[in-house]
Amino acid sequence: MTSPISEVIVTPVAFADPPLLNAAGVHEPYALRSIIEVRCADGSYGLGESYGNTAHLEGLQAVAAQLPGLDPMRRNDLARVVERHVRTVADDGGSAGSVSATRTFGALISPFEVACLDVTGKALGRPVSDLLGGAVRDRVDFSAYLFYRFAAHPGQDVDEWGAALDPEGIVAQARKMITEYGFGSIKLKAGVLAPDAEADAILALREAFPDLPLRIDPNAVWDVDTAVRIAKRLDGVLEYFEDPVRGIPEMAALSAQIDVPLATNMCVVAWEHVAPAVRDDAVQIVLSDHHYWGGLRACTELARTCETFGLGLSMHSNSHLGISLAAMVHLGAATPHLTYALDTHWPWKHEDLVTGAPVFSGGSAAVPTTPGLGVELDRDALARLHEQYLSSGIRARDDIGYLRRNWAEPELTKLLGEGHMFS
Amino acid sequence: MTSPISEVIVTPVAFADPPLLNAAGVHEPYALRSIIEVRCADGSYGLGESYGNTAHLEGLQAVAAQLPGLDPMRRNDLARVVERHVRTVADDGGSAGSVSATRTFGALISPFEVACLDVTGKALGRPVSDLLGGAVRDRVDFSAYLFYRFAAHPGQDVDEWGAALDPEGIVAQARKMITEYGFGSIKLKAGVLAPDAEADAILALREAFPDLPLRIDPNAVWDVDTAVRIAKRLDGVLEYFEDPVRGIPEMAALSAQIDVPLATNMCVVAWEHVAPAVRDDAVQIVLSDHHYWGGLRACTELARTCETFGLGLSMHSNSHLGISLAAMVHLGAATPHLTYALDTHWPWKHEDLVTGAPVFSGGSAAVPTTPGLGVELDRDALARLHEQYLSSGIRARDDIGYLRRNWAEPELTKLLGEGHMFS
Repeated sequence: MTSPISEVIVTPVAFADPPLLNAAGVHEPYALRSIIEVRCADGSYGLGESYGNTAHLEGLQAVAAQLPGLDPMRRNDLARVVERHVRTVADDGGSAGSVSATRTFGALISPFEVACLDVTGKALGRPVSDLLGGAVRDRVDFSAYLFYRFAAHPGQDVDEWGAALDPEGIVAQARKMITEYGFGSIKLKAGVLAPDAEADAILALREAFPDLPLRIDPNAVWDVDTAVRIAKRLDGVLEYFEDPVRGIPEMAALSAQIDVPLATNMCVVAWEHVAPAVRDDAVQIVLSDHHYWGGLRACTELARTCETFGLGLSMHSNSHLGISLAAMVHLGAATPHLTYALDTHWPWKHEDLVTGAPVFSGGSAAVPTTPGLGVELDRDALARLHEQYLSSGIRARDDIGYLRRNWAEPELTKLLGEGHMFS
Repeated sequence: MTSPISEVIVTPVAFADPPLLNAAGVHEPYALRSIIEVRCADGSYGLGESYGNTAHLEGLQAVAAQLPGLDPMRRNDLARVVERHVRTVADDGGSAGSVSATRTFGALISPFEVACLDVTGKALGRPVSDLLGGAVRDRVDFSAYLFYRFAAHPGQDVDEWGAALDPEGIVAQARKMITEYGFGSIKLKAGVLAPDAEADAILALREAFPDLPLRIDPNAVWDVDTAVRIAKRLDGVLEYFEDPVRGIPEMAALSAQIDVPLATNMCVVAWEHVAPAVRDDAVQIVLSDHHYWGGLRACTELARTCETFGLGLSMHSNSHLGISLAAMVHLGAATPHLTYALDTHWPWKHEDLVTGAPVFSGGSAAVPTTPGLGVELDRDALARLHEQYLSSGIRARDDIGYLRRNWAEPELTKLLGEGHMFS
């Protein structure tokens, strides 16, 4: 049986991250996360993982302080606490009832909900997937998540991957990642080079991997005309086209002009976005993410909504650790309506603070069958990654600031080519 | 901890029902239900309740035979068994993949899901509402469900309610029901007398109960022009207008012409109906019903979908026993987005086969806090109601056949007035 929450500890951590490029700039040497430990009166504990920027961390800490005494099985009680917190903060800032308040709610409740599911699963001797209705598959497919990247952070040695700044580099990266993980589909994070240079990379991937589904994600920095042009260049090549343009109206305008399905984790990121996106047929696939949709059970509800409205469903990823991977795998396992391989930054990470995280092979991760999430906290590693957080000096993700501080023009143009997205 | 299902028993029962009129005819002397008992290896059991007509009963029995060995916590495993059964049956009849197959699935899985939640709750020492996320209210509001009715079934004595066939009778019925139960809102089952005679009853209720929300439900037997006319007569009087016309296109046509919100449990009864209803703005309120939407967790998903698309949510009722009442109350308690008092036929029933059913006072039912649904099977009563089923000879609901066999014109016109719906 579960026992009440006695204490909730929120620990910010930083883990080493390679210089991956995206439309917002380049990943800094450390990615931030917040680690949630929900401790219960019987000595059991559950884990959650979320974003690590200071504003969010403070929100998590404020919520955490209000949780002792709560019953970890009763999500609705947790929701009330988080709602009250969000209302207070939003009232202060005048954003009560806004989409921003909904998103804040979703991001704040998520790691606590996951930790409560973890501790409940442990108490009941059940994997988290059982608490979500039971796994409908015993392995969950992921895709190879390719990035343009620099060879190394300034002052650091080149890692095993090295640079990838042109089609050859991307194909080589894909080959290495697929060799190691066996992924059966490929996603390219775009929005970095000139659009046509990125389309060239997709065509090179198609030639190198004729049978693998391919996706491209320019993070909404293209305009509709560019996206139409690239879609036509890649006609018949893409599995789906992720967030080529910004916002529901532009996605709808694009969707009306092309055949390839549009996917998003940018214009449908809160419940309020679903109805307008459906009404305007702006997207055909939602990339869910329990970190901002409000936890695992909210994502099973999102899956039902997507199925009901004929939308496909996949899963979005940020740089994450093993707690989030386990949560994603349990969710993926227990979601009947899951229509594409999931995203994950997993291959780019070299350190962690849990043991027992799901293991990849053949492009998929095995669904844990041990109680809870199936991961155990390595307290030494937690302490080390927290020290890293303290010493890193990073308190919020700032990809563009980091890029500007370390890569001056014309070096950038030399590396990324004419027409790159930071020029 | 839960243990695997060892045996599932399906028992058809019949309970006495007064001669309540509706657009389909009049209730027969007995209403049919199927009682599901899921027994687990550890000796525990869980209860579910569903429709009792023979075709459905046979489906339940076919599914029940395949459940031993299943884990009652894993809804998705249960869903697979029911899906397989529906596919087999639908393939035989050529309706695989149809809305009819979806509805069959929803109706067949529901009582087993409820029974599995009941036994799981008992195993965990938790009320079913906790398994749905926890109660967000400790009482659930219901409405007074008024019916035109004859004084008695042929050959039977008049009961404590007597006839209600005009505005005075309906107001008297409301007064008695509200005195006994304290309901704070009123629904009139219509589609029986001439539409204007039923509107007269609503106006009489408004006069007698100036502060109570009023609803009318003609079960989709009016045409759009009639519904528009009645809506105008009742302008400002109705809380919502339930299924005045048949089907999404007609409801949408009506909705465009009137201000009062339209509610339905007739044109949105399967997931496939949601998208067209939203697209055409055909309804503003969905009356959910776990008996055909696929169980309690499916209804929490439906609630999320309704909230996401700005639809209100209430709950539909058929004649039911205490198992279903308990399930409805747990679901209502754990559904944050529940925007109206629920329907129930409860006041019309005088016998049951469980003890511990939720008790009404002040128009609401207390949410059970004991493990599972909170009801216990009275095996003597079950045997008696099963005997009643056997001796009743009723095997499928046939309100119109019963009406035609027992009330001839011109008696009907004398009782129901000129222009009644069976003329």
